[in-house]
Amino acid sequence: MVFFDSDYMVGAHPEILARLIDTNSLHTVGYGRDEFTKDAAEKILKACGIDNGQVYFLVGGTQTNAVVIDRLLDHNDGVLAASTAHINVHEAGAIESNGHKVITLPHDNGKLNAHDISEYIKQFYSDDTNEFMVRPGMVYISFPTELGTIYSKDELENIYAVCRRYDIPLFIDGARLAYGLAADGCDVTLQELAHNCDVFYIGGTKCGALFGEAVVTKRPELFPRFRSLIKLHGATLAKGRLLGVQFLALFSDELYRKIGEHGVRMAMKLKKGFMDKGYPLFIDSPTNQQFFLLPNDIIEHLKEVASFEIWGTKGEKTTPVRFVTDWSSAESDIDILLANI
Amino acid sequence: MVFFDSDYMVGAHPEILARLIDTNSLHTVGYGRDEFTKDAAEKILKACGIDNGQVYFLVGGTQTNAVVIDRLLDHNDGVLAASTAHINVHEAGAIESNGHKVITLPHDNGKLNAHDISEYIKQFYSDDTNEFMVRPGMVYISFPTELGTIYSKDELENIYAVCRRYDIPLFIDGARLAYGLAADGCDVTLQELAHNCDVFYIGGTKCGALFGEAVVTKRPELFPRFRSLIKLHGATLAKGRLLGVQFLALFSDELYRKIGEHGVRMAMKLKKGFMDKGYPLFIDSPTNQQFFLLPNDIIEHLKEVASFEIWGTKGEKTTPVRFVTDWSSAESDIDILLANI
Amino acid sequence: MVFFDSDYMVGAHPEILARLIDTNSLHTVGYGRDEFTKDAAEKILKACGIDNGQVYFLVGGTQTNAVVIDRLLDHNDGVLAASTAHINVHEAGAIESNGHKVITLPHDNGKLNAHDISEYIKQFYSDDTNEFMVRPGMVYISFPTELGTIYSKDELENIYAVCRRYDIPLFIDGARLAYGLAADGCDVTLQELAHNCDVFYIGGTKCGALFGEAVVTKRPELFPRFRSLIKLHGATLAKGRLLGVQFLALFSDELYRKIGEHGVRMAMKLKKGFMDKGYPLFIDSPTNQQFFLLPNDIIEHLKEVASFEIWGTKGEKTTPVRFVTDWSSAESDIDILLANI
Amino acid sequence: MVFFDSDYMVGAHPEILARLIDTNSLHTVGYGRDEFTKDAAEKILKACGIDNGQVYFLVGGTQTNAVVIDRLLDHNDGVLAASTAHINVHEAGAIESNGHKVITLPHDNGKLNAHDISEYIKQFYSDDTNEFMVRPGMVYISFPTELGTIYSKDELENIYAVCRRYDIPLFIDGARLAYGLAADGCDVTLQELAHNCDVFYIGGTKCGALFGEAVVTKRPELFPRFRSLIKLHGATLAKGRLLGVQFLALFSDELYRKIGEHGVRMAMKLKKGFMDKGYPLFIDSPTNQQFFLLPNDIIEHLKEVASFEIWGTKGEKTTPVRFVTDWSSAESDIDILLANI
Repeated sequence: MVFFDSDYMVGAHPEILARLIDTNSLHTVGYGRDEFTKDAAEKILKACGIDNGQVYFLVGGTQTNAVVIDRLLDHNDGVLAASTAHINVHEAGAIESNGHKVITLPHDNGKLNAHDISEYIKQFYSDDTNEFMVRPGMVYISFPTELGTIYSKDELENIYAVCRRYDIPLFIDGARLAYGLAADGCDVTLQELAHNCDVFYIGGTKCGALFGEAVVTKRPELFPRFRSLIKLHGATLAKGRLLGVQFLALFSDELYRKIGEHGVRMAMKLKKGFMDKGYPLFIDSPTNQQFFLLPNDIIEHLKEVASFEIWGTKGEKTTPVRFVTDWSSAESDIDILLANI
Repeated sequence: MVFFDSDYMVGAHPEILARLIDTNSLHTVGYGRDEFTKDAAEKILKACGIDNGQVYFLVGGTQTNAVVIDRLLDHNDGVLAASTAHINVHEAGAIESNGHKVITLPHDNGKLNAHDISEYIKQFYSDDTNEFMVRPGMVYISFPTELGTIYSKDELENIYAVCRRYDIPLFIDGARLAYGLAADGCDVTLQELAHNCDVFYIGGTKCGALFGEAVVTKRPELFPRFRSLIKLHGATLAKGRLLGVQFLALFSDELYRKIGEHGVRMAMKLKKGFMDKGYPLFIDSPTNQQFFLLPNDIIEHLKEVASFEIWGTKGEKTTPVRFVTDWSSAESDIDILLANI
Repeated sequence: MVFFDSDYMVGAHPEILARLIDTNSLHTVGYGRDEFTKDAAEKILKACGIDNGQVYFLVGGTQTNAVVIDRLLDHNDGVLAASTAHINVHEAGAIESNGHKVITLPHDNGKLNAHDISEYIKQFYSDDTNEFMVRPGMVYISFPTELGTIYSKDELENIYAVCRRYDIPLFIDGARLAYGLAADGCDVTLQELAHNCDVFYIGGTKCGALFGEAVVTKRPELFPRFRSLIKLHGATLAKGRLLGVQFLALFSDELYRKIGEHGVRMAMKLKKGFMDKGYPLFIDSPTNQQFFLLPNDIIEHLKEVASFEIWGTKGEKTTPVRFVTDWSSAESDIDILLANI
Repeated sequence: MVFFDSDYMVGAHPEILARLIDTNSLHTVGYGRDEFTKDAAEKILKACGIDNGQVYFLVGGTQTNAVVIDRLLDHNDGVLAASTAHINVHEAGAIESNGHKVITLPHDNGKLNAHDISEYIKQFYSDDTNEFMVRPGMVYISFPTELGTIYSKDELENIYAVCRRYDIPLFIDGARLAYGLAADGCDVTLQELAHNCDVFYIGGTKCGALFGEAVVTKRPELFPRFRSLIKLHGATLAKGRLLGVQFLALFSDELYRKIGEHGVRMAMKLKKGFMDKGYPLFIDSPTNQQFFLLPNDIIEHLKEVASFEIWGTKGEKTTPVRFVTDWSSAESDIDILLANI
């Protein structure tokens, strides 16, 4: 059996695991006040080219989205997001449970564009009855998106320009950031991304760690008493150093970059394999998620050798499916897959 | 340096770490739907003597308290708790952030008693203007309490009898359960505890795991759509098997019991050492937290060789301090400590 | 100046005012426990043909929507509604502020249809990953809708059948109910409406009262401790009898029916007047809100003699506008309006 | 029967009712954007001696407390209040339902003192583990208190000095303000009260209006987008002018002052009557609430001629009771009461 359901099916990258083993018997203070965590934050800020920023470590992605958004929004503000956004569809209402509306905009393969955002906000402010509407208080995008697509540097700069014009924060969900930065055709560097938003997070869970997401901001003033808010949300890890240790590994020897590159290389091999055999792309993604429209009989056959996700509703003759690669995907896994189509 | 600040300063117990290493490269489905998690749940239910129960795994204690209480309470209900309760003092307002009042009762060394609970509820229902007051919708206690003390079987049964009389759930916070069950004089078994409440959790974080708390209930009907609520709270671990694997280790070869016993044995050695030298107890605790009233100069001296917590406000001549043991505490650590007083 | 902005620009209908004056100096118990409130509730239940129901009086519409929905939904449920719904657009995020997602469906002139609702729910339950999505826990519709349209008896029955099939409540917002029931072509009676949903409210504010909305349910078991929840939401009126007195007037001598009929008669006169002069309808509404597409110069001219609302964004040559009638609209007001187009 | 249960048993003061009748048939814009509301706000600011302030009108007291506190507190802040405070006991958990903890301090007959507040805050900031505790983000007091007592000017200034020292707002609940300002021995004027806090409200409901509370602040910068937040809480009155009209009446010809004085005069007559007959005070209140400890047989007898509240639990021989006066209390009512003891 080869596994392509998702990028959270296996444990930690061996280098991360090794660090956890090495440090296991050490005593440190709790709640992320330890030296590992401090060092990891410094390494990350340096990699991002941020001088006076701040890094906060959380355990998972839904949690990170909920806590960051709760910090950035006033009680009667909402967050602008694509209708396909993780926060709108796959978080069980976490954002609303904190009192905030997800204001959805149309998307292009999962991506928002600066014009739509700008028009929505302009419209909102053009009408003085807006006081009974939810104010768009921030913008949320993902890099890559739920559909595996990425923003170009231009697109990102344009979105951020709109946010600055209206003085609302831009937050980038980087649950799969490694695969976005490593994508074919990606013209955005980690540093450029870090500077073209107010806050983003570097996904660990889906990019080689056991768990962990690193929230990075160049504007710490937007995050007053944030450690307290993290605790209020039950998102503080007692043995906080586990996050520091893992991210220290991810940002040593360019491991985070290498994990992203490996995942994307495997994804491109897989993509080429399917395309060469004439299967149409369902979505054209340059990252570690690959979407095809496959005949139902092929799908049934494939299920015997591989695990993967049916993407949406089963069609009469063909159905969209998703294959996901990660640091653990092997060339031989892809070969097995391709041999069966 | 020897370490007695808390029971979350070190990594995982070697047997747990070994299991994590062994299973690291396996592929499993996410979100706790894997076999490790299923097996761990079964082992736990068996250990608890529960036939038709349910186990849910969460990451940390504050999170577990918040999510369980949010499930058990109706929107306009509150939770009865000791004024010293973790949920009232040390969770940054997590319970209130979900809309619920913590209704505090007086305590005896951290413990509630059945009579006070009963009187409060009786008083509430005696007055028909109670519709503008917060209804006491459940009872929260800890075993052991914040102050290291434990309930006797009788005390527990009496509290649970009150809860059943008024048909409100009793929830026991077992963040340090291993040390409670192993305490000198404890006359409650895990099975008796499991049956004398509606839901409780078995603490992993402070009892040998990297992280993890196992919520156990004999009344699954109280937890409809609970996995969804856990997600809403950002408390779902993507690589959920990490929790299953750890608890599987904890409930194999009686590891959980052994960890508790070791922690308590070390605590008793420490306690005897201080008492033999004439230092008064600040609180008389039979578990892994030990509280003494020490002269300030002794405290200053001790700080050079040991880490521990000042408990409350510094006094003029003497100050209360807390020492905490866990699975990693060594006899030699205690000896160093005692040699310095 | 003649006034057509909305149906909340003037005080109470004279018969209501008279009752308030008559009862002003009486002493009664507070919080709606008085006899006026009791009598009003009985009269309403009788008018609705409900034997074992319950009536709750609240002050305003947004408040009523928020409190009713908060009672009906579990913490991790959402409410299905048209994208144009008042709860989705004009309540400043009140529903989300209580933790609930508004799940929007497409609409036809403000109306939902049974098929779309059914498909959405079916789709939700077809996928076992729905545990990370917001469960559709109830359906919200308005009668009439935000756009003045009404449901036929068939449409209503079909929607309610879907709700019963999936065992989720149907809630009807009747802020302008009087005008809906009195609409040309309405084939639904108050009794039929009351029986084709689980809960609805009879709007007072926009239908002749100073303020007040009467929540009516044939299923009181869905509203445990509801008076307490109303208080929690700050929606309990201390001098609660003011609501009882007003609804007692509205449900005496068929005043509520007459108010609706007058409003609609004035609206139809207005509609005919505009249509006769060749102005196109923007929305075809049979109730007290009328929508036309008017040339911008006509709009400018009209503003000098009448107040009304620009509906949406100003167009280059023509712009949609809304005129609203109510119990206080006079034939002569309409004549003045029509004389100026 | 004579009525002393509470100060919300009767309709509006005749002068207020007259204004409502006079203005009933006028058309005005909704939601408090009308001229009556504007004029009322100006009159109130002038009466308070505030130049650049802001007034917001809401419907009821619990609602006002909830909305103001929700505006002033950050998500992870709590409000300091007396354990007897209305927000802690009689609002069904409204404050917590918005996510905020009520942090209780001991009281002296319902009053907080500056020292206790200062000590609590100092203690909070002295400990760096406070990040896991709820930050005291504001102070709430009532004038008069739940027990009818009032603060002296000195006491008020001292409390406000503490608030300014720690830069947290002071909010005064003035549900019964008229009776407080008119109290025997009150050395605080409306203007002094307005300047010795950041925000307070002038109670209408219990002081002669049908309903309505006027929130007054000298620091509008603390209330960004407050009209939107009021709407979100369902607290916006569509026919908002009803609030403006009533407060315009209350602040014309010193009606608010006169209402307070009348209520207190009646209360003092009542108090003297009971004391002359030797019945002990339960609480010594200088305002319109009077508390006595009466023999149970007297209470039973009194119930036949008068309505009043049993205050707390019935004792074996004597029981505390409360009598409340208001603008509608007549000398003859008191005489009847006193003739029966």
